[in-house]
Amino acid sequence: MHVTMKSALAAIEAARKEAVKLKTQMCIAVVDSGANLKAFVRMDDAWVGSIDIAIKKAKTAVYFGMPTGEIGKLSQPGGSLFGIEHSNDGLITFPGGLPIVDEEGVLVGAIGVSGSSVENDHKVAAAGLKVVGICDLPQHPWRT
Amino acid sequence: MHVTMKSALAAIEAARKEAVKLKTQMCIAVVDSGANLKAFVRMDDAWVGSIDIAIKKAKTAVYFGMPTGEIGKLSQPGGSLFGIEHSNDGLITFPGGLPIVDEEGVLVGAIGVSGSSVENDHKVAAAGLKVVGICDLPQHPWRT
Amino acid sequence: MHVTMKSALAAIEAARKEAVKLKTQMCIAVVDSGANLKAFVRMDDAWVGSIDIAIKKAKTAVYFGMPTGEIGKLSQPGGSLFGIEHSNDGLITFPGGLPIVDEEGVLVGAIGVSGSSVENDHKVAAAGLKVVGICDLPQHPWRT
Amino acid sequence: MHVTMKSALAAIEAARKEAVKLKTQMCIAVVDSGANLKAFVRMDDAWVGSIDIAIKKAKTAVYFGMPTGEIGKLSQPGGSLFGIEHSNDGLITFPGGLPIVDEEGVLVGAIGVSGSSVENDHKVAAAGLKVVGICDLPQHPWRT
Repeated sequence: MHVTMKSALAAIEAARKEAVKLKTQMCIAVVDSGANLKAFVRMDDAWVGSIDIAIKKAKTAVYFGMPTGEIGKLSQPGGSLFGIEHSNDGLITFPGGLPIVDEEGVLVGAIGVSGSSVENDHKVAAAGLKVVGICDLPQHPWRT
Repeated sequence: MHVTMKSALAAIEAARKEAVKLKTQMCIAVVDSGANLKAFVRMDDAWVGSIDIAIKKAKTAVYFGMPTGEIGKLSQPGGSLFGIEHSNDGLITFPGGLPIVDEEGVLVGAIGVSGSSVENDHKVAAAGLKVVGICDLPQHPWRT
Repeated sequence: MHVTMKSALAAIEAARKEAVKLKTQMCIAVVDSGANLKAFVRMDDAWVGSIDIAIKKAKTAVYFGMPTGEIGKLSQPGGSLFGIEHSNDGLITFPGGLPIVDEEGVLVGAIGVSGSSVENDHKVAAAGLKVVGICDLPQHPWRT
Repeated sequence: MHVTMKSALAAIEAARKEAVKLKTQMCIAVVDSGANLKAFVRMDDAWVGSIDIAIKKAKTAVYFGMPTGEIGKLSQPGGSLFGIEHSNDGLITFPGGLPIVDEEGVLVGAIGVSGSSVENDHKVAAAGLKVVGICDLPQHPWRT
């Protein structure tokens, strides 16, 4: 199951509004459950370098079915997943990427945001997620 | 000068409507004059393989300030640009990518479309372009 | 919807038997509808270079929902899709890749085979496909 | 000398059974002594991001003839191999990859597993290895 275009655009629009409220300029990406890009918007004056980070955050969140920041906790020096960022053509493991889980507990995609502090990135991603789903997957086994 | 977010989304929406009219499912990308992604939408059931092609068509159109199909005429075996597709991490040189030139003759970005025949791809790109500019650059020197 | 592990392994086993019958050594790959690898086998003495080709054939077939050889007809010099192989990190557009479509007409994945002549590659892919689905998608709109 | 297809599939099947026993969903890869993919299976609902990690763990284990976790001890900040993950198109240096050494002490391939905690990944890899060899190479010089 995949996030629909309509949902992806609704998530991006809600995220964009939050970004405006926070007086930030963001790149906002939505990928489907196969980690393939579904929709993307770069606000005017957002960092060019955030394009790839927003997309990679969304991909990372769907790759492992969890918020990107959770992976980052485990990938620090000495952590159990140190260096995981070298996989999958590059992961981004700090906050700003959230899985999109539908009402039946199915992972249907993810949203990734980049352009400000990670706190703001996370807030904007959460605002986008809120209108289309939640980010908590049920305990394994969950379905894709 | 760059295409604004507002213009990019307007172009995508106009293109999407044309795609619906043609009963096709398209990926539609807009890049700015630096060939960096500005906005993107994948319609439901559009080919997954078209994501990259739509983006590459938009990039290709802005890289050289001309419709992708024009480059493709020159990149055939024996042609003066044979093999140019190997540059810039991969070009797409068949129709479906159009520069976006504003009313002052400035290249501000490009639109790229993929998902059906190249004729349909071109039509959809043209419909998107129409609401935000033209694709004909003035003779060199032109500004970016 | 995605091809299951069980179906992917069944397809590979049927393909492998056909390869033995043809006295060939093949690489056989199955990807899901997101073009992500599901299962893979390299027969003993199969070409090392066929690993990537088999996987790329499977990806190519799912990217565009059609047999790889069909794309190859359109990507010849002068053809409407000339150079499409430069997209998606490299396509393989000669025969040997087939979409897997389930009984409800949904594209659930693809099988890709490499290791002998393209005729043999195609036969082996077809033998694998046969036990898990068909390769003909209904007319658009089809679902992924 | 290379791991045979039969051995690779036997290792994967044994690993898969261990994964089921642990109530996990794993990606399991086997590469030969040239670090080229021999066989691969992704269990249903395994993380999409684990495909590449399982393969990279197997490659990493064969690249250096040791368990991936051993390399990870040396690649921490300040360690003698800090940053080695940047080589070979990306290494994964936390546990879950084990060399496959045959009864004559020859490195014939490696198994890589990803999809759960590194402890579980390691257990599943070890279960796969057990049916086809050991992971301890004799002191240098050893043969490939």
